[in-house]
Amino acid sequence: MSNENNTIVIFGATGDLAQRKLVPALFQLRCKGRLPDGLRIVGFSRSDYSDDQFRDFMWKGTREVGELAMRQDEWDMFARDLYYVSGDLRQASDIARLGQRLDDLEHHESSANRLFYMSIAPNLYEPAIQNLAASTLARKDGGWRRVVIEKPFGRDLKSAQALNRVVHDVFAEDQVFRIDHYLGKETVQNLLVFRFANAIFEPLWNRNYVDSVQITVAEEVAVGDRAGYYDQSGVIRDMVQNHLLQLLTMVAMEPPSSMDADSLRDRKVDLLKAIRRWSPEEAAQNAVSGQYRGYLNESGVAPDSTTPTYAAMRLYVDNWRWKDVPFYLRTGKAMTEKASEIVIQFQRPPHMMFSLEQGRELTPNTLSIFLQPDEGIHLTFQAKVPDQGMTMRSSNLSFHYDSAFKEQEIPEAYERLLQDALAGDASLFIRSDHIEEAWRVINPLLQAWEDSSAVETYEIGSWGPDAAAALLAQDGREWLRVGGGHEGERA
Amino acid sequence: MSNENNTIVIFGATGDLAQRKLVPALFQLRCKGRLPDGLRIVGFSRSDYSDDQFRDFMWKGTREVGELAMRQDEWDMFARDLYYVSGDLRQASDIARLGQRLDDLEHHESSANRLFYMSIAPNLYEPAIQNLAASTLARKDGGWRRVVIEKPFGRDLKSAQALNRVVHDVFAEDQVFRIDHYLGKETVQNLLVFRFANAIFEPLWNRNYVDSVQITVAEEVAVGDRAGYYDQSGVIRDMVQNHLLQLLTMVAMEPPSSMDADSLRDRKVDLLKAIRRWSPEEAAQNAVSGQYRGYLNESGVAPDSTTPTYAAMRLYVDNWRWKDVPFYLRTGKAMTEKASEIVIQFQRPPHMMFSLEQGRELTPNTLSIFLQPDEGIHLTFQAKVPDQGMTMRSSNLSFHYDSAFKEQEIPEAYERLLQDALAGDASLFIRSDHIEEAWRVINPLLQAWEDSSAVETYEIGSWGPDAAAALLAQDGREWLRVGGGHEGERA
Repeated sequence: MSNENNTIVIFGATGDLAQRKLVPALFQLRCKGRLPDGLRIVGFSRSDYSDDQFRDFMWKGTREVGELAMRQDEWDMFARDLYYVSGDLRQASDIARLGQRLDDLEHHESSANRLFYMSIAPNLYEPAIQNLAASTLARKDGGWRRVVIEKPFGRDLKSAQALNRVVHDVFAEDQVFRIDHYLGKETVQNLLVFRFANAIFEPLWNRNYVDSVQITVAEEVAVGDRAGYYDQSGVIRDMVQNHLLQLLTMVAMEPPSSMDADSLRDRKVDLLKAIRRWSPEEAAQNAVSGQYRGYLNESGVAPDSTTPTYAAMRLYVDNWRWKDVPFYLRTGKAMTEKASEIVIQFQRPPHMMFSLEQGRELTPNTLSIFLQPDEGIHLTFQAKVPDQGMTMRSSNLSFHYDSAFKEQEIPEAYERLLQDALAGDASLFIRSDHIEEAWRVINPLLQAWEDSSAVETYEIGSWGPDAAAALLAQDGREWLRVGGGHEGERA
Repeated sequence: MSNENNTIVIFGATGDLAQRKLVPALFQLRCKGRLPDGLRIVGFSRSDYSDDQFRDFMWKGTREVGELAMRQDEWDMFARDLYYVSGDLRQASDIARLGQRLDDLEHHESSANRLFYMSIAPNLYEPAIQNLAASTLARKDGGWRRVVIEKPFGRDLKSAQALNRVVHDVFAEDQVFRIDHYLGKETVQNLLVFRFANAIFEPLWNRNYVDSVQITVAEEVAVGDRAGYYDQSGVIRDMVQNHLLQLLTMVAMEPPSSMDADSLRDRKVDLLKAIRRWSPEEAAQNAVSGQYRGYLNESGVAPDSTTPTYAAMRLYVDNWRWKDVPFYLRTGKAMTEKASEIVIQFQRPPHMMFSLEQGRELTPNTLSIFLQPDEGIHLTFQAKVPDQGMTMRSSNLSFHYDSAFKEQEIPEAYERLLQDALAGDASLFIRSDHIEEAWRVINPLLQAWEDSSAVETYEIGSWGPDAAAALLAQDGREWLRVGGGHEGERA
């Protein structure tokens, strides 16, 4: 890699994300030879660390990533480019002091590039950005300036719009990299390849052949340490507005003309704009929420909290491709298992030439895309059972990442995203209009649920409240079991 | 099973087929409880066997089928229903004597049913059928009369038409069961289920999405003991006119409205009729033949024989679905390996949103249906290589019978076919018009090749003569490697 003058500044550098994800990902990239030579990482936070203390702190996080623990020699080289500045980002003078350190580290070269990574509480985005501007750290000189902003980006449409205005006062949109780490996942990127590097799926990918789509992002864990934050957010802000709508756009968008950031993101925004907008009353009929039993006892949760930890909903995309095809989304904490999965359920054959047993209906084809944990794809089809007349059984055409790509580790999402941000490729980051459209989709739900004084509960380790099953039963459908739902095929 | 009065008469009962396939298949059916109670099997041939000698002879063949060797007790029960009549089927008096034995065994019940199985040399079909008629054995009384006729059915259009006339003088078409044992194979029947019990393949199954179709039936064995017969027939009569055209019709026909024998067979005949007919000159441009080196040394082969042991050809189906889609068929003896496989090659995506390395073209999707030996299906698609930008690699969605249906043996084709013939279900048998249309497709080839004084040779253990590769190269295509052609996926 060329010897450019690059600095990543991490705000919130002593936090969990920086220690367990960002710096380990950067070190991985260095080990793979994918970081620009001489790239320096400057941590900024209130803790009173020296550079060396900061390096030790980061090694502690990094060596917990199994394969990296063995690489102390390389780490020692890498760590020389780690620096730390202590300060309060709400104080312009502290940010100015950070600026002086950056100037020194950059040898006062005007061509130096800076990536500011906001790994901080959402209420600090605004002061951080404003103080960057005030102290001229964000001013372009010869080099570029970019800012990476973690989720959540706003807590509703209005606050997201306000934050976008603050950001755009300082940065042009092409300098802004809003993160949804789901987009960095291999399996999510493979959705693009699957849909658009293969000629055989696109002809089927529409209302003529698709019966319905299910998207499940289930977490087995409860809220745990994050209860205080979580109780203020709830499942819609934590999962639906970002991850689930991202998956929906990747599955349902029209084919982009290229991987160019705007070509791709234009199509995603088109899709969000086409999602049928509910009134709060309609939202209540098309979505259900739930809270797992015991949530109220979590430390940090208000004793009368009605914050939902589970949501399921029916969305419609009002365009030529998807008119009247229901998209069922569900996500929750404290569920039966951890599983992210997209299932395309196809329509039944229009005519059956085979005679079926009395009362038996043909199982329709489904395409299941497992995003985690067992990354892979199942295409369920009817096969003839050997030696049984014309008896049929659901079978799977199967693909599993781990056996297909034995030699390749599936990397952490942050690796890809940090590499793209350094390269200035915003394809897998979220544009301002996307953020706002996603809030517009979600706002009626927030309104419907924040006004309600009660929430249905569900058992820990279940698949959510009964109302979620009832939602699909209204349409004569049911949630498909994650993991394919067919015996004997998956490990 | 009901206690009907049923007899199977096997002409050519001391032959290989009867001993190694037919009677073992019937015994299998008995073990599975799928034969009518009291069904008797009467062998007829010139050898001077007693009933007991015939039973011993059949046990010898049956116990060579691995799992049946253990079942001597059941065999002893089954063998009581085996009988033998010695005679010459060209002698009406011998056939009359067979008739008397049948009457006795049937207790002279007029409701008795008879299935005549012609497991004899093709030149004996005519005298056998005529003597059945002369001796009134084939005359319907209360019970039914059916005749099963082995391939080859004629050696060209004219002789097939003549044989059909002889058959139809005695039997109505619904009494006639012309066998192509390929139709009894599980994987061939599964073609019907795959295409017509699944909604997702039919929309792709046409000229809009399919680039070309390849059908390979490769035999590793040379002609062996059958050299004398084979030299009179050649690869076209032995394999193409029957097996390969059957596979072609199963892959390419329009959806039948039901599994009813005529619904299914109407669609197959439609397909054969739509195959573009060549002049002998066009045939020479669209087909190549070959003879393996050493064939002339096989015992029974004429020293100057130009009989082809390999054929490859390009066919077109002139209808709305397939216009201009080439169907490439090839088959041969003494090839690299034994493999029967159908590959649907789809077109490339109309537009690539991903940038490919210089000079690299995207691999198109293929659907490979392995009929034998490793029965299964591969759908090749492009997947993202983990951790490699947007690099793609061909991967497989895979299905294998042996792992999907662990508990089920794949039965011999003859089991299914004998069971269907006893039940009067002719779906998987060949109708007279099908036979004649198949000969019409093939006739120009026979004419082109039988007039030629030379044949290209190919190495034993190769994939055939160079001209076969050149045939596809003319179209900018190549034969796809059997077994999927993609590393690391198949055992």
